[in-house]
Amino acid sequence: MGTKIDLGPNGFIYPMPVTLVGADLTAGPNFMTVAWITRVQPNPPRLACGLGKGHATNIGIREHREFSVCLPSTDQLAVSDWCGLVSAGSGADKAAMFSIFRGALEHAPMIAECPLCLECRVERVVDLGSHELFVADLVATWTEERFLDEKSRPDIEKLRPFTLTMPDKRYWAVGDQVGEAWSVGRSVGGQPPAE
Amino acid sequence: MGTKIDLGPNGFIYPMPVTLVGADLTAGPNFMTVAWITRVQPNPPRLACGLGKGHATNIGIREHREFSVCLPSTDQLAVSDWCGLVSAGSGADKAAMFSIFRGALEHAPMIAECPLCLECRVERVVDLGSHELFVADLVATWTEERFLDEKSRPDIEKLRPFTLTMPDKRYWAVGDQVGEAWSVGRSVGGQPPAE
Repeated sequence: MGTKIDLGPNGFIYPMPVTLVGADLTAGPNFMTVAWITRVQPNPPRLACGLGKGHATNIGIREHREFSVCLPSTDQLAVSDWCGLVSAGSGADKAAMFSIFRGALEHAPMIAECPLCLECRVERVVDLGSHELFVADLVATWTEERFLDEKSRPDIEKLRPFTLTMPDKRYWAVGDQVGEAWSVGRSVGGQPPAE
Repeated sequence: MGTKIDLGPNGFIYPMPVTLVGADLTAGPNFMTVAWITRVQPNPPRLACGLGKGHATNIGIREHREFSVCLPSTDQLAVSDWCGLVSAGSGADKAAMFSIFRGALEHAPMIAECPLCLECRVERVVDLGSHELFVADLVATWTEERFLDEKSRPDIEKLRPFTLTMPDKRYWAVGDQVGEAWSVGRSVGGQPPAE
């Protein structure tokens, strides 16, 4: 271990999952690239994402209190990046780039090309300042048989999502499996795990 | 595109970054494995993580309103998994597995072996039900010169973090770079990006 240095308060969590958040705007469905997102509770299943208040997406989510989270694969890398470059507010029709489908909710447009899409209903909106945190209940998880493993679980090697690192602005594929969770640590510590 | 099927409301965001959250408990510093975490606002820089209320870590964070987020490398894979298997409440001394250091805050113990550690001051606690969401301001980002790129930014290929997928419970290394963000999408859509 070397000398520790302080880079200031702009540290990131590495790496960040890249998603496309879908919402219905006045002009129609829209999709925005979002990497600041995470699950926050298992039951009821909830996630949270932080979005700058200036985005057109925020207006649509606040109005309908519904949105989607679509996980693109590396096949959708360029168009996913594009959805973060252009703004619906400037007239870009991002929905025209995709095949849109809907599930249980009226205002959670989803992208058929994305291997996994989550339907979300807003539980609360937390005002952070420049951003707001949308805390939402998961309603459904849409995928296809071809993306599942032998136990009918989403298979990351078939989904092929990608991640983002900042401030270097790079996208990364998921690499090799390096261990089994709640398992590889059993050899450590010399005491039985208290699960 | 094939037929869409609904797996129910337990969809995950893929993949999830693995971190170790450090807090001061009555018995001393403690670390807990956390993958439900994300940045939520750039200025002031803020993150959020959802932790089950039953954890000893929550008590320490609520008491001191400070904690750390340490990003382990694959070198710390087994001990990071172990920190999710055992509970401080059951007497496990997880801090004994690491070299602890501290920065600007009194109650944000950090792991010297981890290539990147964030100091966090709680901004608010959002009660979700079984879990609570700790929204926190970033105070400092601790790393070492050897983990930086030529522009003095953290270099993911030197940090070598790892990610988690659920419900299949697997850890993954970061793979190949697949593109540049805010860049690779410029060829899409036929219109100038509105940045």
